[in-house]
Amino acid sequence: MRVMVLRIGHRIPRDERVTTHVCLTARALGADGVLIANVRDSQLIETINKVTDRFGGGFHVEAGKAWRSTIAEWRREGGKVVHLTAYGIPLPKIIDEIRRSKEDKLVVVGAEKVPGEMYALADWNVAVTNQPISEVSALGVFLDWLFEHTRLEAEFPNAKVRIIPTEHGKTVATA
Amino acid sequence: MRVMVLRIGHRIPRDERVTTHVCLTARALGADGVLIANVRDSQLIETINKVTDRFGGGFHVEAGKAWRSTIAEWRREGGKVVHLTAYGIPLPKIIDEIRRSKEDKLVVVGAEKVPGEMYALADWNVAVTNQPISEVSALGVFLDWLFEHTRLEAEFPNAKVRIIPTEHGKTVATA
Repeated sequence: MRVMVLRIGHRIPRDERVTTHVCLTARALGADGVLIANVRDSQLIETINKVTDRFGGGFHVEAGKAWRSTIAEWRREGGKVVHLTAYGIPLPKIIDEIRRSKEDKLVVVGAEKVPGEMYALADWNVAVTNQPISEVSALGVFLDWLFEHTRLEAEFPNAKVRIIPTEHGKTVATA
Repeated sequence: MRVMVLRIGHRIPRDERVTTHVCLTARALGADGVLIANVRDSQLIETINKVTDRFGGGFHVEAGKAWRSTIAEWRREGGKVVHLTAYGIPLPKIIDEIRRSKEDKLVVVGAEKVPGEMYALADWNVAVTNQPISEVSALGVFLDWLFEHTRLEAEFPNAKVRIIPTEHGKTVATA
């Protein structure tokens, strides 16, 4: 199963840091990449590509395609769409159904207001708590649950730099 | 067990949005409050207090006290300190030990560089993946694990507004 994140509503410069956090979270917790809708942000892509180059894995970021056509194409190819929103069905109630579906998943996270249409387009509107929360932590918790809490110690292939877990201090190994 | 989050390295305006995400995450996933170290940010406190006033619960935010004295005081009162960092011990390896300790927990999250001293001061340096990640998602995943994945459907007392989980759309109930 392929898992991509679709970031909608990204604005420069307002969302640069938060969208960077979305991308790092997606990569660290096992998504295959992030699509940033509607806006080209080459600086952000460069930042994330540098992290992937150093720390490994095949994470892929691209930006600029309209969110509606991204979703339409995803569905045409047989993929399913998960929209993370505080208004949705609580994650614990819906996660088994999502895990049972073996289709590729597009996980949509918005910034500020999300177009009303998105709620209809999603196969699942999923709430990581029905409380105001951050899309960054909602994405992190969702991916952790989707992968059944198994991805926190994953190794990333082709890493130039690896962090060695340390009780008190910082240890880094270079390839 | 009381769980407070200590946000260190907060800078205005650079970290306003990310620290807001830290606070919303802490509240939604069951922490009792956030202490923002060293910097007074009354606008941020007001933003979070408005959320708590509308959506309920007794979440508490304060700002301005030096991080070293906050940690010293916390330990003097018998509390333990968890520092979230990619350099630490993977969460799955250390979570049982942390859950077994019944003392109050101060969960420290940094912005950008964290003073080296912090790694020595923490009872546990905990990695939510040994990868570059966001402190927002690291906090979310950590709290979810700390509370054994049970807080995602918690009700908040004294809410003026409640979100009613909905498959496709937005439903809100007012008290």
